[in-house]
Amino acid sequence: MEVSIAHSAELLHRANHIILTAHIHPDGDALGSLLALNAYLSAQGKQVRMLLDDEVPRTFKFLADWEKIEKPDSSEIEADLLVVLDASDLERVGKVRNAVKAPILNLDHHISNLKFADYWYVDSQAAATGEIIFKILNAVQATVTADMATALFTAIATDCGFFRFANTSTETLRFASELVALGAKPHIISEYLDTKPLAVIAALPKVLETLEIVDCGQGRQIAALTLRQEILADLREDTEGFINYPRNIEGVEIAVMFKETDNSVRVSLRSKTVDVSKIALGFGGGGHARAAGCTVAEPLSKAKRLIMEAAKKQLAKGVSIK
Amino acid sequence: MEVSIAHSAELLHRANHIILTAHIHPDGDALGSLLALNAYLSAQGKQVRMLLDDEVPRTFKFLADWEKIEKPDSSEIEADLLVVLDASDLERVGKVRNAVKAPILNLDHHISNLKFADYWYVDSQAAATGEIIFKILNAVQATVTADMATALFTAIATDCGFFRFANTSTETLRFASELVALGAKPHIISEYLDTKPLAVIAALPKVLETLEIVDCGQGRQIAALTLRQEILADLREDTEGFINYPRNIEGVEIAVMFKETDNSVRVSLRSKTVDVSKIALGFGGGGHARAAGCTVAEPLSKAKRLIMEAAKKQLAKGVSIK
Repeated sequence: MEVSIAHSAELLHRANHIILTAHIHPDGDALGSLLALNAYLSAQGKQVRMLLDDEVPRTFKFLADWEKIEKPDSSEIEADLLVVLDASDLERVGKVRNAVKAPILNLDHHISNLKFADYWYVDSQAAATGEIIFKILNAVQATVTADMATALFTAIATDCGFFRFANTSTETLRFASELVALGAKPHIISEYLDTKPLAVIAALPKVLETLEIVDCGQGRQIAALTLRQEILADLREDTEGFINYPRNIEGVEIAVMFKETDNSVRVSLRSKTVDVSKIALGFGGGGHARAAGCTVAEPLSKAKRLIMEAAKKQLAKGVSIK
Repeated sequence: MEVSIAHSAELLHRANHIILTAHIHPDGDALGSLLALNAYLSAQGKQVRMLLDDEVPRTFKFLADWEKIEKPDSSEIEADLLVVLDASDLERVGKVRNAVKAPILNLDHHISNLKFADYWYVDSQAAATGEIIFKILNAVQATVTADMATALFTAIATDCGFFRFANTSTETLRFASELVALGAKPHIISEYLDTKPLAVIAALPKVLETLEIVDCGQGRQIAALTLRQEILADLREDTEGFINYPRNIEGVEIAVMFKETDNSVRVSLRSKTVDVSKIALGFGGGGHARAAGCTVAEPLSKAKRLIMEAAKKQLAKGVSIK
């Protein structure tokens, strides 16, 4: 059943033995929400465990208590409540799904949420699940420590591109403001989040060498980057942010990044004024108007040709999303 | 004399013919403050002109009314008030200084402000002069249009590195939140601000090839980029942001960028835990603990050696600024 913030708080209040989890491939929102909620419930004297069927990425190891996050093993755990954070379906929590026997409370902000849980609070207007956790903490007048504020600021900032994405609302920034008042330090947090392995910076020249620009007339361009398997091996999949290079070039309306895998090509699309989700949908993918993706089961050269043709057609339609 | 927000508002209210100006090499804060204040005063039916002794950089030409900004010519202008925005001394407004005969109101946030004006409001705690303008507009209960909100959001966001710098306060983010409520769109603004000429992206591989990393033991490193004159010619001085590449590498404590000029080398320093203003001061420069700069009147190779030695010494002291 659908629950309110107050009801969610009540469910947490009534439970004593609580398991918290979040989606695999955890991002800042999953981890920040997990750690902040864990800190609050632990301070309430509850028996809490954080289970996550994945590693904590190095980037987020500045968050307090990350090392208390456990991986699920084969043993079955009984609890009063399993809280599933930032996951729109139960598949996304991996092995935790079968490891825990408990009623499920799902707190999430994905519009694609499948409402799989016993209790769910899904706010697709929230930029991050971290906003929902902060609302719950405010509703119960919780003491928010600097560590919790840091975790929640990280959750919110990572999911809205550090206040650059279209989901950055007046509430997003107000929460960020309140979290700074509670001890979150944007300059420290951003420093940790922006840190990259040397391999990523060192690979950048090779990546940028693949830059192709197609002029579609009237000063409107499509720009593409291609990551071959050799480069991807060096990068260990750490390719986030590369697509911003073509995207940020003056005159570029559509940016594309091709990532070669063994038998297909993963395609990321970004745009300024063109609805690129339409292009992605045409290849069985999806996403938003400004950011979408798909996988094309063709060799690299053919995949590139197909996508670039589709992008040109979409650009020619001249429909603006602004 | 020092004035309050209310007194500043009163001075603006009493004047009819008002000239607005800001510092040369205008940034987002100078231009956003200028345009927002101009919009408010014009709506009040006042005779307002914006004078700026410089070009408006392309990046900021999305701000409404930028084309109304005039360059001062040789004629002398009399006015009831000259408002000097975001400038800490009168030199910084160039020819406007002599072109306008009027009492001066200076609104600024630089700690180095020389208090040169007839009336000054200087708040060094403000992340941007845009915050001060917003306070004045709020004090007089001005109608803030979406265009004005966009100008002020741009002013604030550019001066705090889009909420990443240490000057990002709880008030900075609260103002940003209120400006979004008034119609500023962070995703549109950031898109304009992030746009770069192709030449800058195309030069990046060459720039990154100059990356040097000096290991100082205990996993602490100094990383340097060197921009020779040839590359700088391609870039037309558009080198902002390059220093973030060495700065963001895992393990790097001090990042340095050397820019070769005809007879000296301009040095930018960034750090995470070391006070680099001490290094800059040693060469007649200055700045903050985390961001400083200086000019060394030596050939490139000697300048590099001197700075890298000083950086190693500063790192060895092991004093943390966090």
